[in-house]
Amino acid sequence: MSDRDDSTDAPNRNTLWARTLVAELAAAGIDAACLAPGSRSTPLTVAFARHPDIEVFSHLDERSAAFFALGRAKRTGKPTPLVCTSGTAAANFHPAVIEANQARVPMLVLTADRPPELRDSGANQTIDQQKLYGDAVRWYADLPEPEPETRKLRSLRTTAARAVAESTAVPPGPVHLNVPFRKPLEPVEVPGDVPEDFADEAPLAAEGRAGSDGNRPFVRTARGHPELAGTDLREVRRAVEAADRGLLVVGPADAPATDSGLPAPDRDALAELAEATGFPILADTLSGHRFGHDAALLASGERPVADGDRSRALVAGGYDGYLGAVGDSWPDPEVVVRFGASPTSKVLRQYLEAADARQFLVDPAGGWREATFTATDLLAADPTRLARRLAEAVGSEGDEAWRDRFADAERDYWSLVADARDERLFEGGVLSAVAQYAPDPATVMVSNSMPVRDLDRFGQPRPADLSVLGNRGASGIDGITSTGLGAGSATDDPLVVVTGDLAYYHDLNGLLAIARCGVDATIVEINNDGGGIFHMLPIEDFDPPFTEQFRTPHGLDFEATGDLYDLDFERVETLGAFRSAFRESVGSGGTRVIEVTTDAEASHRFRETLEARVADRLP
Amino acid sequence: MSDRDDSTDAPNRNTLWARTLVAELAAAGIDAACLAPGSRSTPLTVAFARHPDIEVFSHLDERSAAFFALGRAKRTGKPTPLVCTSGTAAANFHPAVIEANQARVPMLVLTADRPPELRDSGANQTIDQQKLYGDAVRWYADLPEPEPETRKLRSLRTTAARAVAESTAVPPGPVHLNVPFRKPLEPVEVPGDVPEDFADEAPLAAEGRAGSDGNRPFVRTARGHPELAGTDLREVRRAVEAADRGLLVVGPADAPATDSGLPAPDRDALAELAEATGFPILADTLSGHRFGHDAALLASGERPVADGDRSRALVAGGYDGYLGAVGDSWPDPEVVVRFGASPTSKVLRQYLEAADARQFLVDPAGGWREATFTATDLLAADPTRLARRLAEAVGSEGDEAWRDRFADAERDYWSLVADARDERLFEGGVLSAVAQYAPDPATVMVSNSMPVRDLDRFGQPRPADLSVLGNRGASGIDGITSTGLGAGSATDDPLVVVTGDLAYYHDLNGLLAIARCGVDATIVEINNDGGGIFHMLPIEDFDPPFTEQFRTPHGLDFEATGDLYDLDFERVETLGAFRSAFRESVGSGGTRVIEVTTDAEASHRFRETLEARVADRLP
Repeated sequence: MSDRDDSTDAPNRNTLWARTLVAELAAAGIDAACLAPGSRSTPLTVAFARHPDIEVFSHLDERSAAFFALGRAKRTGKPTPLVCTSGTAAANFHPAVIEANQARVPMLVLTADRPPELRDSGANQTIDQQKLYGDAVRWYADLPEPEPETRKLRSLRTTAARAVAESTAVPPGPVHLNVPFRKPLEPVEVPGDVPEDFADEAPLAAEGRAGSDGNRPFVRTARGHPELAGTDLREVRRAVEAADRGLLVVGPADAPATDSGLPAPDRDALAELAEATGFPILADTLSGHRFGHDAALLASGERPVADGDRSRALVAGGYDGYLGAVGDSWPDPEVVVRFGASPTSKVLRQYLEAADARQFLVDPAGGWREATFTATDLLAADPTRLARRLAEAVGSEGDEAWRDRFADAERDYWSLVADARDERLFEGGVLSAVAQYAPDPATVMVSNSMPVRDLDRFGQPRPADLSVLGNRGASGIDGITSTGLGAGSATDDPLVVVTGDLAYYHDLNGLLAIARCGVDATIVEINNDGGGIFHMLPIEDFDPPFTEQFRTPHGLDFEATGDLYDLDFERVETLGAFRSAFRESVGSGGTRVIEVTTDAEASHRFRETLEARVADRLP
Repeated sequence: MSDRDDSTDAPNRNTLWARTLVAELAAAGIDAACLAPGSRSTPLTVAFARHPDIEVFSHLDERSAAFFALGRAKRTGKPTPLVCTSGTAAANFHPAVIEANQARVPMLVLTADRPPELRDSGANQTIDQQKLYGDAVRWYADLPEPEPETRKLRSLRTTAARAVAESTAVPPGPVHLNVPFRKPLEPVEVPGDVPEDFADEAPLAAEGRAGSDGNRPFVRTARGHPELAGTDLREVRRAVEAADRGLLVVGPADAPATDSGLPAPDRDALAELAEATGFPILADTLSGHRFGHDAALLASGERPVADGDRSRALVAGGYDGYLGAVGDSWPDPEVVVRFGASPTSKVLRQYLEAADARQFLVDPAGGWREATFTATDLLAADPTRLARRLAEAVGSEGDEAWRDRFADAERDYWSLVADARDERLFEGGVLSAVAQYAPDPATVMVSNSMPVRDLDRFGQPRPADLSVLGNRGASGIDGITSTGLGAGSATDDPLVVVTGDLAYYHDLNGLLAIARCGVDATIVEINNDGGGIFHMLPIEDFDPPFTEQFRTPHGLDFEATGDLYDLDFERVETLGAFRSAFRESVGSGGTRVIEVTTDAEASHRFRETLEARVADRLP
């Protein structure tokens, strides 16, 4: 283990304790941590900073730090430990902890604490940190007081291994370890504090397990994947075979792949299932399936499909734009196999809700993510494995006319969108352009409120490998920039963040990570001076309080944020200008904020126009 | 009641529900609310915005909103209700909720929620909001679903009255009401939703109690103040009378006066007790006693005291600067009567801890805020009443030499500080100048980390009525600017906020309140480019990781924050320049950010020099 050589010359018990914890985390595969400055957390900070195999990201605002760690985990599939001092610092992590819980993202929160006798004593910077995040964590442990004692150190090593395993289990999520320390917190020599012969007396406790690679965890976890029994699978197969009109729906599944598997089937498995059943894939923009499938599966006209060798699989992405517009003329499905979380598209949710169909909800964690209460069957099974087994088993395919209806609608819809985009600048057109011009591969983080909905409606399926991420667990407006930057820190893929002005403002502090953590990004900030989404809600008709309390124009000139964080800042007002700024930025490898100013009300009216055109054109 | 005329023509049950809740809050004395935009909270937002007697402050970042509400409550003694939508928005309140809990500040959090059947269903923006703040609140209630039903509305009116009463009880603190709503959320007409004859059938439920002033609460709370029995008081009196050397120590007591009284004795009562006992008052900078006492009580030289008519009362404020410097030569007290929270001064805490004295801790809530475990007696009693009764009862006074020793030390110490301040610019000198030149009256908010410690050490007692506030409940670095602006919004007193660069950065979003909430402030931002306090800790000797993980220089040019928020921004590098910028700003009534750039390390060395001089000069 990388700390092996010096674990026994720890100058005091806190050094030994923190170094042991960090060494075990490293042995469990942790290679980065987010640290917020503070005094009580000194032993942890020093241990992380000094570990040769761990990259540390220093953050000054804990709220942004936690979202950064969340975003990073979304690409790595393992937690990026968060370290903070005692007190309200830990509460600043809370929004991201909730998002990690609901979006099923690994997270490991290490809150330093005062020693137990100071709790509830009126001591400075001492709060009740026990179970601070309530039921939002998969596991909570209050660590014992550091001590060079065999059982305690073995327990610590186990706790570290367990914390990582719990955070990457099914479903993945946050784990909270509360870690008390008493002074001295610094790595100062305390003679006798760690007995000199401690390592000889208790080598396993002191040094852990030294494998052949020198980095073996104290406890390794192997976790089985849930697999349906043959009789249960046959039941699904029969329902699928009996249906002419079936759908494969993949909702948001941008949670990372962990050792426990993917939250939705991988692309090959789903394509096989679509091929075998002939059912269209309705791919949410956050599903991992809207982008990245082979061009042959797309009805987009990118590569026209010849009649002879057409794939029976189809990836549809425009349904949010046409299923509602065409209304009741569109037939209901008879069977639906759903993966991932509840779809971003309200149109789709309502369409499925209205259908009297057999609806299978596949969830590896057996979660009941079913807010429309339409599922008839819950399948607690590994999605990739299930899709593959089902594809192998299914013997008949659905109605070709049903699939063609989707294929035709896709072609017509995307051609209308392309025309509309050139007609005038509106938010949907910006997201359409982002989907089209994002490099391959790229990480694309989209904010809540309108950007994710607009990408869902206007982002045309493409073979490019875009990892599209959103914070749809709790759908907050907080931490968007930080989540994007954290995700960007995890790979060499270019990073695009699309945010609105309110989300950009909310997480302004997150911009500091660009310089401090060395992450580059193209940040598209769509500025309609306030909450554009409220124009879509009935409250628009009640002013006051509409303008002051809902639309909330702030009038901030964000150009100053470029000066504050030393970033290129460019404001564009036409789609052409946006397109060239965007392509230039993503091609440059540097960071630029591209502000697109739009008029929320006019955009809203244009959406309505577009919807009328869709209703007109489609059958 | 002001909503009486239209309470019965509510267009739907949500309108009726929210309007009733807000009307009862107004009847309970609430006259302002902080609203964050969102959809689920629409009924509450509309009800607050439309209430004629309630001023609404619109905030875009819930974290800053909550600290603003906290600060406002610190001056008003009643909660400023906080409203947010469902989801992580509520978690952004958490840091301020914890501070309100620990600092005993009234707070009322109203979190809108989705209806119960959507909880844990995977529905959008739906999290587990129940008991979100754990044990940090005085009272939590999950409201029933809105319905025009007699018992429900009477319960709602009672809940509103109770929420205000609980938040202003002994000790004051946060209350959390979770308020579910189902659509429609807007005040749209829903025929039959509220029966037309509802007000006739259930006038009390529908309209509340119409007193002669038209504004009578549904339930009025009267709360008794804890008063010691005569035998217990005699015990205190005997101990006080038996001592030659006694101290009256007042720690942080910047929590507001509520209906339940003040957290520490009022100035008259404490002066009477000091006069009767002859014991010096050691007044924490946050005690409410450092500033505002009659000049006759100060040994500052502001008004030399003639031998004949000297007051026996003395307000001492320099102890943090000399008790440690002079060391063991200073005698221990024999009796200590302590009020408020644990003193800001570590020197004082250690001095008291080392004394084998009878130490009475007076706390109206009977709290054990005793992290040094020095108290011998806990007195759960109203502090003002106790001080007054004790002053009346005490028949003999302490040793005059003891008091003179403090008086002499104060004179010598403050003269050294004045000289040092002119010698070079350092953080302590800035705080000394703030204490001296702040207008009378003024609200002065000081940040954690160094500013509050520096004001405690270098802020000389003055008769001016300065309301000095800090967030010493949990001593976080978050929300400082917002707390100050919230406090500033409560009165016409000029507002001064003294913050460091890290705290300024952490709560940059809070600056938006200057424009949106119409608050003016002189913001003194002491910029030493990172965590200057760490220079005072042993970690300084360990670099790396000292610079990158503790000192954390950020290199941000805050001048851009002036552009972003459209504020005057001035950078000063000498005490003279600071003094004139400060006096100009506080005299102007407008807002200015004065950035004082200092060198943390050099300042730290100068503090040490100054300490040596004190040790030299004082006996």
